[in-house]
Amino acid sequence: MDRGAIAHMPDSRYCYCIEPGRFLFRLQTGRDDLIDVKLHAQDKYLPVRFVDTRTVTQMHRVAQDDCHDYYEAELTIDVVCLRYFFQLTDKAGNVQYYSNCRFLPEAPQDIDRMYDLPQNLREVERFIVPQWAKNKIVYQVFPSRFATSQNVDPKLWYKAPIRHDTDLKGDLKGITAHLDHLVDLGVDILYMTPIFRSNSTHKYDTIDYYTIDPSFGTTEDLIDLVEKAHALGLRVILDGVFNHTAPEFFAFKDLEDNWEDTPYRDWYYTDGKPKRPRIPLKKPNYKCFSYFGGMPKVNLENQETARYFIDVALYWLRTAKIDGWRLDVGDEVSHYFWRKFRTAVKAEFPEALIVGEVWHYAADFLQGDTWDSVMNYPFLNAAMDLVAEGTLPASGFLNELGFLRGNLNHACHSLLWNLLGSHDTPRALHRCGGDKRKLKLMAALQLLLPGMPFIYYGDEVGLTGGRDPDCRRGMLWDQEKQDKDLLQYYRRLIRLRKALPFLTQDPPQEVIADDETGLISLHWPTHTVLFHSHPTPLPLPRYAGLQDELTEDPFPGTLDAYQAVVLKIR
Amino acid sequence: MDRGAIAHMPDSRYCYCIEPGRFLFRLQTGRDDLIDVKLHAQDKYLPVRFVDTRTVTQMHRVAQDDCHDYYEAELTIDVVCLRYFFQLTDKAGNVQYYSNCRFLPEAPQDIDRMYDLPQNLREVERFIVPQWAKNKIVYQVFPSRFATSQNVDPKLWYKAPIRHDTDLKGDLKGITAHLDHLVDLGVDILYMTPIFRSNSTHKYDTIDYYTIDPSFGTTEDLIDLVEKAHALGLRVILDGVFNHTAPEFFAFKDLEDNWEDTPYRDWYYTDGKPKRPRIPLKKPNYKCFSYFGGMPKVNLENQETARYFIDVALYWLRTAKIDGWRLDVGDEVSHYFWRKFRTAVKAEFPEALIVGEVWHYAADFLQGDTWDSVMNYPFLNAAMDLVAEGTLPASGFLNELGFLRGNLNHACHSLLWNLLGSHDTPRALHRCGGDKRKLKLMAALQLLLPGMPFIYYGDEVGLTGGRDPDCRRGMLWDQEKQDKDLLQYYRRLIRLRKALPFLTQDPPQEVIADDETGLISLHWPTHTVLFHSHPTPLPLPRYAGLQDELTEDPFPGTLDAYQAVVLKIR
Repeated sequence: MDRGAIAHMPDSRYCYCIEPGRFLFRLQTGRDDLIDVKLHAQDKYLPVRFVDTRTVTQMHRVAQDDCHDYYEAELTIDVVCLRYFFQLTDKAGNVQYYSNCRFLPEAPQDIDRMYDLPQNLREVERFIVPQWAKNKIVYQVFPSRFATSQNVDPKLWYKAPIRHDTDLKGDLKGITAHLDHLVDLGVDILYMTPIFRSNSTHKYDTIDYYTIDPSFGTTEDLIDLVEKAHALGLRVILDGVFNHTAPEFFAFKDLEDNWEDTPYRDWYYTDGKPKRPRIPLKKPNYKCFSYFGGMPKVNLENQETARYFIDVALYWLRTAKIDGWRLDVGDEVSHYFWRKFRTAVKAEFPEALIVGEVWHYAADFLQGDTWDSVMNYPFLNAAMDLVAEGTLPASGFLNELGFLRGNLNHACHSLLWNLLGSHDTPRALHRCGGDKRKLKLMAALQLLLPGMPFIYYGDEVGLTGGRDPDCRRGMLWDQEKQDKDLLQYYRRLIRLRKALPFLTQDPPQEVIADDETGLISLHWPTHTVLFHSHPTPLPLPRYAGLQDELTEDPFPGTLDAYQAVVLKIR
Repeated sequence: MDRGAIAHMPDSRYCYCIEPGRFLFRLQTGRDDLIDVKLHAQDKYLPVRFVDTRTVTQMHRVAQDDCHDYYEAELTIDVVCLRYFFQLTDKAGNVQYYSNCRFLPEAPQDIDRMYDLPQNLREVERFIVPQWAKNKIVYQVFPSRFATSQNVDPKLWYKAPIRHDTDLKGDLKGITAHLDHLVDLGVDILYMTPIFRSNSTHKYDTIDYYTIDPSFGTTEDLIDLVEKAHALGLRVILDGVFNHTAPEFFAFKDLEDNWEDTPYRDWYYTDGKPKRPRIPLKKPNYKCFSYFGGMPKVNLENQETARYFIDVALYWLRTAKIDGWRLDVGDEVSHYFWRKFRTAVKAEFPEALIVGEVWHYAADFLQGDTWDSVMNYPFLNAAMDLVAEGTLPASGFLNELGFLRGNLNHACHSLLWNLLGSHDTPRALHRCGGDKRKLKLMAALQLLLPGMPFIYYGDEVGLTGGRDPDCRRGMLWDQEKQDKDLLQYYRRLIRLRKALPFLTQDPPQEVIADDETGLISLHWPTHTVLFHSHPTPLPLPRYAGLQDELTEDPFPGTLDAYQAVVLKIR
């Protein structure tokens, strides 16, 4: 038995409340090491000699990653505290008991040597997410480059912006006028990068959180956009940049102009009166986002400052009736602030979606007390490695998903923003070296698997571009420039995702990865979904003639390079 | 390489701030699996092509448990974010890189595939504990049975109480009059179980949190006790019972008397007007501690209720100048409440000590945001198993300590309340079957190792007793009844603990467990400490003649059964 790989801590990563009275238990073991895992449980306070409350529950392997199996069981309970331990059997038939992080040769009798689950505590700390967002599709718009209500020279529109272009003409009215594109594509949620007053193209350095940037329009334009979006069944998420401001933000400006008397000294982290550096990446005498003096970091541990930014979040939820916030640089701000943020936002808007930007595995922000979800960059990395780079075997891709499945609270699984690119990365098509077959396969992975698929505007019509700011080119509205085949493919994927709810709601009965052929196959009772991640055609005569719901044609018997199919088997 | 046993998550269990600018990194590996571990780190935001910030740091194995090694390194940094990964070498010379929870054959170059440490976030979330409490000795008093200022029939005093005895005569004036016993023994902190108005012996069902129980005295008596204790260099900790109240507490009483109009409905968890059950352990229609209707559970998620109990905590810190709170049934109350509790208490009393009652490994409460420490029942279990029961080998005892050392934040290691018994357990001497040699060895383990040794009143003079309430017999003040040899032994241990600060402050250079002989030996440059956990004499001629600082005699060359010695080797 690989005892070193076995883990269960008495915390919410391994045991949590699904709904009042119902609890999930999870055990990590070595990969393919055990053949049987059972959960023993009993009431803490009712002695067995009075009432025998002992139960034994079979645990099931629900996920695997590179090195681990993850076993789970659910229990319905009505107790003050539950005491529990695990019974483990390995392939050689050896049985061990694992209790309170210890291995025992016999089942423990002393309840104080067992794990403890205080029911009320875990119920209070339950991870509650907005149900409307589960598995929904996000469409990210960079407002200065998505659409305009003005007359623009097409040459100017389609060019890649330079970093501080501010005459790009994209505006909210333009977005509103193009909501039909989102509806037609089939997405559910519009997420816009920052729209508040700022001197930059990207607007991540906010000057005034209560004013829409004049180049984008007005508060009324935003209200109108959200109203029209809601009428069309779309939700709207804004980008909250609360880690830092522009230096022109009133509080920082007061530090610069009025250092001796300013009431805002504790709003930032400054070592004396702030001096903006002239050399980029030369550390200034105040904390910043990165080392850019143009984005001074806010001290959100100061309660007055925290209140200010929470009020900003509430103001736009109230005023424009937006549906949530994406939180920029979320992982550089403390859990302390985000807990206050969540408490305040959810108290008034329990259905608001809160999604943090973080580029790595982020279980510490997905415990139910801060955010609902994250930008799922681990998904992006896995998809790129499997398809665009060809450096990850098929089994490796499943291991990446298995790691998240086995380590994150289920409540957020269907809310992870599974992206293939953003305003911060090279475009997916660029990373595929322009190979649209690869892009299509990645889109299929994104749109046929659970989570919230996240489409960066223009990916669906063949827009490309390298590193920021090249990835922020103007949206291709010229019909001649749009890749209609690609667009049709995206539409079909989305239509299928909605037509076949088992894709996102029911775990497949079997998932197989074949590293030799690059084939990943997911099996449901009525359908088999195949993702072919290799560049050579793959004969699969046993499936020949089955209807491919994606092409709406019978499957010819051979998978093309990078092809995905959704075969109806019954 | 045992990859399944290797673990480092990007959270505060594995990486945390020691002091601003200084950070600890920890890696779990399989036991005895690796021969070299290195930490690679670099600035996130300064591209290597501009400034090469890359560093490589040797990591050292600092602890082992049954299945794992724990490696650590410390880094001094001044960045916005640090990116890092690990380089692992096993005994066969195989090298792997471990980054972002993935194994890689080559060192990653892409900083987004590395672990991330946001410096400001981790500094804000630093675990700050009261320095005065480190390694100090706690003496627990059960106020109704420790000392009295009244004339009492000795027969009545020394008997074991029955559960609801309330005429036991112990009082605060009695404790104050006997503080010299604590000073003489050498302890640092007096911790008293509850002293507020209650109808029970134990007083864990509080009727009025603002009144000292009349049988114990008055607020003035408490103020006088704390003043006198402080004058003698002693600190005082009270017991905070905030999980539940007595049914006679005003808010619950109002539910019973005035259900239709009560403003306190949300102060408890009741399903309609509360009805006290007549049969013990018959679940009432409201949540309780255990299932005792006499201890209704408070709804601390209600902000008004939370405020009430936090005010109670602040009131006694202000009024009586106590030094901290021990929190009863701490792990059945949510982290949400305890975070508010800590914030409020530490804002006004940063030096107040907050210790939670929890009976198992409790890392989730030792992250810096709720408590400073816990009752360390895992220590009790390990000491009992090693010595009293003889069921744990010497190496097993070290593994138990190693598990805590490798998994808890260092900030709290020297604050863990290492107990051998309490008012909730059989007395240590009872568990040793009356064998005082065993009790002495456990006392030596407790008092010569780091942490906060926790002495239950009377253990030091040979008081015994079985399960609660038998473990709550009257303190042996009769000189004839006191075991003077035992008391002298406790005094010597405490004197040595203070005279030899390396015992608690410097990790030993070597720690060896010999399961065959039951010997645990700790080696420092000037001293060797030996704990002999077996019942047979153990010849150790190589140490013969060295001075034993505990007996103040030369070591005769043979360890007696259950003997501990502190040998001066240089």
